Amino acid sequence: MRGKRRGEDLVIGLMSGTSYDGVAAALAAIRGTGLATRAELRAFATFPFPPAVRRAIAEVSSPATGTVDRVCRANVLLGELFAEAAIAIARRAGVPLRRIALIGSHGQTIHHLPGEKRGRSTFSSKKLNVPFSRLAATLQIGEPCVIAERTGVTTVADFRPRDMAAGGQGAPLVPYVDYLLLRHRRRGRLVLNLGGIANVTHLPPACRAGDVLAFDTGPGNMLLDALVSLFTHGRRTYDRDGAMAARGTVSDPLLRWLLRHPYLRRKPPKSTGREAFGVPFAREVLLRVTGEDRLKAGLQTKAGAFGVPPLGGLTPADILATATAFTAESVADAWRRFVAPRGRVDEVVASGGGCHNRTLMRRLADAFAPIPVLTSDEFGTPVDAKEALAFAILARETLAGRPGNLPSATGAARPVVLGKIVPGRKPAARREQRRLGQQRTKGTQGT
Amino acid sequence: MRGKRRGEDLVIGLMSGTSYDGVAAALAAIRGTGLATRAELRAFATFPFPPAVRRAIAEVSSPATGTVDRVCRANVLLGELFAEAAIAIARRAGVPLRRIALIGSHGQTIHHLPGEKRGRSTFSSKKLNVPFSRLAATLQIGEPCVIAERTGVTTVADFRPRDMAAGGQGAPLVPYVDYLLLRHRRRGRLVLNLGGIANVTHLPPACRAGDVLAFDTGPGNMLLDALVSLFTHGRRTYDRDGAMAARGTVSDPLLRWLLRHPYLRRKPPKSTGREAFGVPFAREVLLRVTGEDRLKAGLQTKAGAFGVPPLGGLTPADILATATAFTAESVADAWRRFVAPRGRVDEVVASGGGCHNRTLMRRLADAFAPIPVLTSDEFGTPVDAKEALAFAILARETLAGRPGNLPSATGAARPVVLGKIVPGRKPAARREQRRLGQQRTKGTQGT
Repeated sequence: MRGKRRGEDLVIGLMSGTSYDGVAAALAAIRGTGLATRAELRAFATFPFPPAVRRAIAEVSSPATGTVDRVCRANVLLGELFAEAAIAIARRAGVPLRRIALIGSHGQTIHHLPGEKRGRSTFSSKKLNVPFSRLAATLQIGEPCVIAERTGVTTVADFRPRDMAAGGQGAPLVPYVDYLLLRHRRRGRLVLNLGGIANVTHLPPACRAGDVLAFDTGPGNMLLDALVSLFTHGRRTYDRDGAMAARGTVSDPLLRWLLRHPYLRRKPPKSTGREAFGVPFAREVLLRVTGEDRLKAGLQTKAGAFGVPPLGGLTPADILATATAFTAESVADAWRRFVAPRGRVDEVVASGGGCHNRTLMRRLADAFAPIPVLTSDEFGTPVDAKEALAFAILARETLAGRPGNLPSATGAARPVVLGKIVPGRKPAARREQRRLGQQRTKGTQGT
Repeated sequence: MRGKRRGEDLVIGLMSGTSYDGVAAALAAIRGTGLATRAELRAFATFPFPPAVRRAIAEVSSPATGTVDRVCRANVLLGELFAEAAIAIARRAGVPLRRIALIGSHGQTIHHLPGEKRGRSTFSSKKLNVPFSRLAATLQIGEPCVIAERTGVTTVADFRPRDMAAGGQGAPLVPYVDYLLLRHRRRGRLVLNLGGIANVTHLPPACRAGDVLAFDTGPGNMLLDALVSLFTHGRRTYDRDGAMAARGTVSDPLLRWLLRHPYLRRKPPKSTGREAFGVPFAREVLLRVTGEDRLKAGLQTKAGAFGVPPLGGLTPADILATATAFTAESVADAWRRFVAPRGRVDEVVASGGGCHNRTLMRRLADAFAPIPVLTSDEFGTPVDAKEALAFAILARETLAGRPGNLPSATGAARPVVLGKIVPGRKPAARREQRRLGQQRTKGTQGT
């Protein structure tokens, strides 16, 4: 491992996105705070969740099966898995845990209810008629006390609720880090993250924090993953390299229908999630192509390229090609509708798992041409590492007492310090403990 | 308001117990840390939950109705109510919020699964066959980010998960504060808290931290409250002053049956909750007295002192008298069985809502005679304020980097710093954060 410079902290960032494939862990050397932040990635890996854990996450995320006892245990279970990922990435980087200054853990979002109202909440228990319906709320699990206890490292987690308490949507949060690391004096950049959900950050040339626009554009990999999973009866979970979609032909009527999705027209700031673009939406798409009976029959048949025969004249490959085109087009639509009128975009900088989907990336390149669609690799951060790295940086901002949200992105009333700090097991803390032991006798005699 | 001395912090403690009547809020001036801690209560009040909130808490606490979306929103709802309580108690004390150094919020426990295994967890994802069944877990809600945002005050919350991560039961935590404030050089004390659940802390004369034994003895007010609620069809929620029980006669056969409850024989450290002694147990008691048909019929009749006619020869008052005797006797049984063999008890110091139940207190006085049963009032802390004050003190220990659990009480493998720190909006809080960051950095640089 390379040496550690003065004023530099080794920080681990942990993230599991809406696709809940596993824990993405990044270990970075970070210097400075705010606009002076410099981050250098030292190690990165994704530690896949065992299938039982994926099932458990799906289970606790749904109101039908996500009961309080399961949520309670899943929180600890994921805390253990996040801790294992932190320990493993430090080992890979050859760094002893005691040299890690900090862990930033996003956790696993199992519910996100951003609410309709914006700005400062007007909640009052005096007016408590319908207690729940007006409250924006979000729930990330992966108990940070478990992470801090297993690693001994101070851990910052639960970044979203504070922004919501300040009237924001609690998302997106990565744009602040985009602003710190990717703003440019002369170039306008559109930073695109293709996770389960796709989101964009617009950094106009020489922008200030208030100039940054960021919002979720719609599905990233979520719709594609759900379709592949339905077509293959769960044997595959994603369209590797976009190969399946590449074999299909885009259906213009289906694409036009998809592009009528009301989320696309909603003005930013806006955020969305599995509730809108997950499996139920994939089923809705298939229902659009065929009738319900046909759909059921199709999904029970094992024939055909993806386990189902052509639906309503379209093959599964066609449907996937169309959904891929929709995903790319929903990003481009957001750019044309909300970004282009406010400022220049000289390049698109993409990251996230969707960058591995060649069909999606080709579609994006076509939609944005002649604006080049680059990836974060070209800026030193592997596409899969970006979000984990972002939460390492956000954790460090929190410990420095610095706000980590961009009100222009989340809709919050003001910048706020994000997250909760769970103390590690510092030498200082251990000295305190020993001192407590010694004081016991003295203190007791004094009483 | 009295002046603030040098080195003294004004701290608010917030607590809602297993009875979830409302938020108990204590404002105290605290000096020193660890055994040098001195606390002076400045204001105290309980802010009752509106009935809709009580229903919401009951709903989210049960696996049958506590779904992830409700848990998600209830967390924010209670955060708002805890914040309101903090703001209200500061106003009552005539202290502007900017002068409050810290808030310690216990939150509302909605699930507590202490698990059977003790000591360091042996969890590994490699052995993940039955992911949930072996994981100890606990869930407190009342989003501290909402409290910190509404008050601007740094808030420490979620005290229990860290102790569990260290192999403890996450409870009881108040014994550490009992140890700090009530240990005595020559007297052995049994500190008794009569909340929903009753727990005792044994402080032998001149004890050290490792000498403190603490555990839940069984029901406090929980069984009595559940019975009154069943008898009155929810019109009353507790036996005010123990008046109903005072009118009944204890049934020896029923008392003997109750005292056979297996929890009483379990060796400490042990903790229990609503799962064991709540409404389902109250129903079991009534089933013991009569048959199911009779019980149903009885509960549908509005006749009789408490809405039901005599059951199996016993009146509701008799059953309540017996349950009150059982509650007192389960405490005395714990003392005889587990405390007396290890050391002297010269006085009992009781606190919690149960102290208002005169029948219960008389039963306790009889059971412990000639050992006097005093209340915390006699030590300067009103019986209802004690737990809220304890979490103010625990929060301050956390901010000072000091462990707040007693392994002898919780069964944890070691003392750990409890809770999560949510930064407020004050320069002082920022200083603490920087200190936390610097300590870690120093430790890291020295390595």
